[in-house]
Amino acid sequence: PESKLPTLGTTIFTQMSALATQHNAINLSQGFPDFSGPAYLQERLAFHVSQGANQYAPMIGVLPLREAIVDKTAARYDHRPDVNSDVTVTSGATEALYAAITALVRTGDEVICFDPSYDSYAPAVELAGGVLKRIALQPPGFRVDWAAFRHLLSEKTRLVILNTPHNPSATVWQRSDFDALWQAIAAQEIYVLSDEVYEHICFDARGHASVLAHADLRQRAVAVSSFGKTFHMTGWKVGYCIAPAAISAEIRKVHQYLTFSVNTPAQLALADMLRAEPEHYRQLPAFYQARRDRLTQALANSRFSVLPCEGTYFLLVDYSAISDLDDVSFCQWMTREAGVATIPLSVFCAEPFPHKLIRLCFAKQEATLDAAAERLCQL
Amino acid sequence: PESKLPTLGTTIFTQMSALATQHNAINLSQGFPDFSGPAYLQERLAFHVSQGANQYAPMIGVLPLREAIVDKTAARYDHRPDVNSDVTVTSGATEALYAAITALVRTGDEVICFDPSYDSYAPAVELAGGVLKRIALQPPGFRVDWAAFRHLLSEKTRLVILNTPHNPSATVWQRSDFDALWQAIAAQEIYVLSDEVYEHICFDARGHASVLAHADLRQRAVAVSSFGKTFHMTGWKVGYCIAPAAISAEIRKVHQYLTFSVNTPAQLALADMLRAEPEHYRQLPAFYQARRDRLTQALANSRFSVLPCEGTYFLLVDYSAISDLDDVSFCQWMTREAGVATIPLSVFCAEPFPHKLIRLCFAKQEATLDAAAERLCQL
Ligand SMILES: CSCCC(=O)C(=O)O
Ligand SMILES: CSCCC(=O)C(=O)O
Repeated sequence: PESKLPTLGTTIFTQMSALATQHNAINLSQGFPDFSGPAYLQERLAFHVSQGANQYAPMIGVLPLREAIVDKTAARYDHRPDVNSDVTVTSGATEALYAAITALVRTGDEVICFDPSYDSYAPAVELAGGVLKRIALQPPGFRVDWAAFRHLLSEKTRLVILNTPHNPSATVWQRSDFDALWQAIAAQEIYVLSDEVYEHICFDARGHASVLAHADLRQRAVAVSSFGKTFHMTGWKVGYCIAPAAISAEIRKVHQYLTFSVNTPAQLALADMLRAEPEHYRQLPAFYQARRDRLTQALANSRFSVLPCEGTYFLLVDYSAISDLDDVSFCQWMTREAGVATIPLSVFCAEPFPHKLIRLCFAKQEATLDAAAERLCQL
Repeated sequence: PESKLPTLGTTIFTQMSALATQHNAINLSQGFPDFSGPAYLQERLAFHVSQGANQYAPMIGVLPLREAIVDKTAARYDHRPDVNSDVTVTSGATEALYAAITALVRTGDEVICFDPSYDSYAPAVELAGGVLKRIALQPPGFRVDWAAFRHLLSEKTRLVILNTPHNPSATVWQRSDFDALWQAIAAQEIYVLSDEVYEHICFDARGHASVLAHADLRQRAVAVSSFGKTFHMTGWKVGYCIAPAAISAEIRKVHQYLTFSVNTPAQLALADMLRAEPEHYRQLPAFYQARRDRLTQALANSRFSVLPCEGTYFLLVDYSAISDLDDVSFCQWMTREAGVATIPLSVFCAEPFPHKLIRLCFAKQEATLDAAAERLCQL
């Protein structure tokens, strides 16, 4: 059949993970830990399965998980979403993003996003008939130029998609960024989709400024998160979104025909986990900051130069002292020759990205990080 | 926000299950078993979780599950799909249906379906910009009038959506139906989406005539199935689709941004299950036929009249000897007054459906069926 997404290939994550396997390389490309989450979480899954919690969950998610999400949100962002009308459990954050975009974007609507941007936003906007307008952020700070942003607004602007902590740049929005966003869009009926899957991974005592903490913005916002990054279980595929009732109602109309509901025992196990160990995610920043610092220090003797990393479990490094190759070629070369797979930054950008930057995932055991750094130091 | 699906409410399954809970009624509405699947399957899930299989599965599904699906398909339908290019694991059959419709239907394309039809098809077609053309099937046989079908074809026809064994009518297509379909569409580039989630639940020694068994049709067809009905685990949400490489490539472009991948340990557990106990699904027809017959016999003394049931775990009954209410009102009344929740047939039809039919789910323990029948016999 003629393709509706003719320019689209396989995601870079699938490509690079496959290349890593092929060359038996250390895989610092696709973002996932090489260790599992808490034993308690695993035990609770087995428990709920054995207790017979194996049939359809409610379309919006099981009540104990929605309650735990509400409590966690209230504790952190000074906002208590309604457990029945505002919270929707989805098949990972990916489904929440897709459902929100499909629900909100109509043919011809304009959507603003910030490049580099996560690769699932654009196809969802395209399938909804929307037109993507991209603001290119510049390394190393990747800060938004709000004058340029306002310049891009038009009568057709319908949605702004942002991501903080930001994958792949590892930068984190401040409250002032949200204020600037609100000032720019307050006068128009523009919605905000805030991808916050790394909400619990901010470093150097930096807090996460959720869109939910902004009393004005959150009335027009969909906040998306998931448990994969927080509990080291990216393969469980349980995410969620929080939005005011009227927006959630539209998202649910899509969600109920996209997947209908999410794995029941995994939801119940996560609810138990959130209740029993609220400390787990409070300890996450220190857990990942130690890995960030370990990898950074191990690369001090390499010819890579490391960019600041404020959050997420990704580290950007500049390889311009090593090679003139473009970033995609360099990543392929490095997987083959050095046995370390990473992700090129240009794949997250629509415009040519004239920088020599690659992304390293440090959600790995210390031994994995050390082995990778040793190889990288030889380049 | 203005709704993109303004006429759409909450699914009838969510509504009726909620009403059942509210009135403490026996729930024969939403289709799910009140028992769990094989202990072996549950054990394998716990095993894979404890072994650390908790990170992203490959986007197209884990290899052992795709291999098991290929072998099962080859054994039953005389067709061996390619394990890499033809099989895609999805978040339940629902996601497979949505992704296939999104990949194949372009703005203005016409899509033919048969009413009564499962409630997820129409919203997916609408969101893709397609125009749904419905053929109304008549009880009790619900057979397709192929002359009417050919009359509905136009230059714009892009896709035909069928479902066999058929929910909610409990009828099963024969090979001759597929032949008639092929004769009607062979000359045009029309695709076929065949929803076969009840493939292993056909009664009275009737075989399931899969679209995959039809050498011509399968070159244009997407066959969708899932494990929820087969292994009594509707809450695990693992489905799949099988289609030729060129069609699968387009479906995967959507799938990779809809959900990206499916719960990893559940996939591995199901792969083990398919390998270890291929007999399980061969025994399913007898397992459910016994329940169908038990419920049918228990209703012999009621004022309901039972329609023929060739497959699925649903039984249609006519209540015209009991009430003049329309079917939606009757189901609500019956939940409240008799304490038995069921599903009205008219919700699966776009045209007024002037019959007095409701659907009873018999995927229940014998005691549940007996208790429900006792209440129904008093009406
Ligand atoms: C869904 S696979 C990609 C995982 C991820 O978020 C990343 O590597 O950026
Ligand atoms: C996805 S909930 C509905 C279950 C079902 O297939 C049915 O009851 O028809």
